[in-house]
Amino acid sequence: MQGNYKALWLNDDLFDECLEVIDQRQLPFVYDTRHLTNTEEVVNAIKNMTVRGAGVIGSVAAFGIYIAAIEVEGDYEALKEKAALIRESRPTAVNLMWAVDRMMELLKDSDDLVDDAREAAIKLNDEEALESQKIAEYGCNIIEDILKKSGKTEINILTHCNAGWLAVIDEGTALAPIYEAQRRGIDVHVWVDETRPRNQGASLTAWELSQSGIKHTIIADNTGGHLMQHGMVDMVIVGADRVSANGDVANKIGTYLKALAAHDNNVPFYVAIPTSTFDFEIRDGVKGIPIEERSADEVRFIKGVDSEGVVREVRITPEDSPAINYGFDVTPARLITGLITNRGVCEADFDKIQEKFRG
Amino acid sequence: MQGNYKALWLNDDLFDECLEVIDQRQLPFVYDTRHLTNTEEVVNAIKNMTVRGAGVIGSVAAFGIYIAAIEVEGDYEALKEKAALIRESRPTAVNLMWAVDRMMELLKDSDDLVDDAREAAIKLNDEEALESQKIAEYGCNIIEDILKKSGKTEINILTHCNAGWLAVIDEGTALAPIYEAQRRGIDVHVWVDETRPRNQGASLTAWELSQSGIKHTIIADNTGGHLMQHGMVDMVIVGADRVSANGDVANKIGTYLKALAAHDNNVPFYVAIPTSTFDFEIRDGVKGIPIEERSADEVRFIKGVDSEGVVREVRITPEDSPAINYGFDVTPARLITGLITNRGVCEADFDKIQEKFRG
Repeated sequence: MQGNYKALWLNDDLFDECLEVIDQRQLPFVYDTRHLTNTEEVVNAIKNMTVRGAGVIGSVAAFGIYIAAIEVEGDYEALKEKAALIRESRPTAVNLMWAVDRMMELLKDSDDLVDDAREAAIKLNDEEALESQKIAEYGCNIIEDILKKSGKTEINILTHCNAGWLAVIDEGTALAPIYEAQRRGIDVHVWVDETRPRNQGASLTAWELSQSGIKHTIIADNTGGHLMQHGMVDMVIVGADRVSANGDVANKIGTYLKALAAHDNNVPFYVAIPTSTFDFEIRDGVKGIPIEERSADEVRFIKGVDSEGVVREVRITPEDSPAINYGFDVTPARLITGLITNRGVCEADFDKIQEKFRG
Repeated sequence: MQGNYKALWLNDDLFDECLEVIDQRQLPFVYDTRHLTNTEEVVNAIKNMTVRGAGVIGSVAAFGIYIAAIEVEGDYEALKEKAALIRESRPTAVNLMWAVDRMMELLKDSDDLVDDAREAAIKLNDEEALESQKIAEYGCNIIEDILKKSGKTEINILTHCNAGWLAVIDEGTALAPIYEAQRRGIDVHVWVDETRPRNQGASLTAWELSQSGIKHTIIADNTGGHLMQHGMVDMVIVGADRVSANGDVANKIGTYLKALAAHDNNVPFYVAIPTSTFDFEIRDGVKGIPIEERSADEVRFIKGVDSEGVVREVRITPEDSPAINYGFDVTPARLITGLITNRGVCEADFDKIQEKFRG
């Protein structure tokens, strides 16, 4: 794999430059990449979760607009149609809509759509990388505080799903402070929720942390409450796909259950996000954030590697039992200790969020 | 399979009678049974979860004492050694210890150890079947009440793990009221937590409910909180492996998280148990009930059936990522609406439990 840990990059080996992405559906069993050379491939890569993670979806969408601009040969009206397809490829992550809207706004008076789209997408990604770096710093300051107060030498952080560099350019959101902790020489251990049904924790977060040599242990999603009851978790950090104006957090299904357990056991529960994750239009996140329902087959089938190294998909339920698959849930603001953003840490509270981010 | 839905039975086709059990490790992909002909086979069947479920473990242990009595040719001192092995085969379920102790007490003055052990084991199982029937009736009365108050025509019940006839003779604990609801013509739908890491929900509960034609939907363990937030769960019923004197409930890992979500959303949360599940020696269940740590490979590997019908085990985590596997957690009494027992419904409260069950 490439050395510098990125989920996507421009590939100019071909006649037309294309977007190259890590195929996250194959991890941790196979490291492979895909070339996205037209809008349809971009949309499919987002829909079928070749790429996933709120930030990376936004990044891919931004470069997707550039790819689309090549495809429509600089016709803005045609580009708008392509942009709409990309914008609708998944419903819950607000970064996707935000990135597409921002790109289209920047390009609306462009004389050179292809070059300007390329430049804008690169700029947007560079900004995201800087945001990730700021989240790393603010988040790690909290880690240092909690560790100091605990009087322990090691800090145990629980995370759910994947919000590392596979999810958000450059080092993620929830995992960015952990990578920063490693740089600062803090002894950190991560409890990795496997994150059913798609197992982004067991497959992506564990793999990311392995690559970086960060101590971690994979647990079933059912386990966090027990660990917290027994003082084995010092803090929780998760990412988010959308945060409403009142600080309710939509994130991977199951986040709400961990927040309840953290609250019940006085474990600090933080959500790490770039400010683009806010959706100020939605006042009540529990009621208002749309929750994606995905294929039941993601519950009924699972992918793994057999004893001979062959990647196989197996059915783990009775053939005639139905299943249902909600991709996200919403954690009420009252359960959240704080939002770690690129512009500092903020309480999950309507007035505080307005003051800090809309002032 | 046999028509009358039992997890174990005596098989007298062989020279010495033996215990025959459904191999629950193969379900729902393969229906197969095992003959247990000596103490070692009984102990291994409990340890490796060929049989599981608090009640069925107790039933197998009781018949295991009979099998051991045949093996030691009626020598009580030798039987005591065998009984100790059976008693230690798993640590969390109190029914196991209870069944072994009860059998040994009944047999201590026996003149005909083999025949008396057989009779005692059958009696103990018949008693358990009667207890299951009483739990069904008391539990179903609650279902009727909740349905009436809701004004709906269908009741949605969430359950975790498997506490049906594969777990407890004859119809289980948590599922017994649901089977009774079907008999009473109530329109019931069950949300089945898949129950990682061993997937007893997706494989056993879903299979049981399918066999009985009860409507059900399999969900990832992460999903219950979201469903409860949106009014899609009318009540929760789970079983238990041990209940302390103050009403704290040890059950399959993840039960605590569902209880927190139920409490947060005013969803009634019931625990269905035979009275043998009480451990009056333990005053504080969260601190005092021993929690079994099982092999990490139960998290790292999963069994399923491939597209050609072959049952395969695949690894679902990176090769070098460690995992940990706690089998149970303890739900504090304060989160429990009531205990449905064979002697009626009781609050999960020290004084109420003392009054009702130790008076």
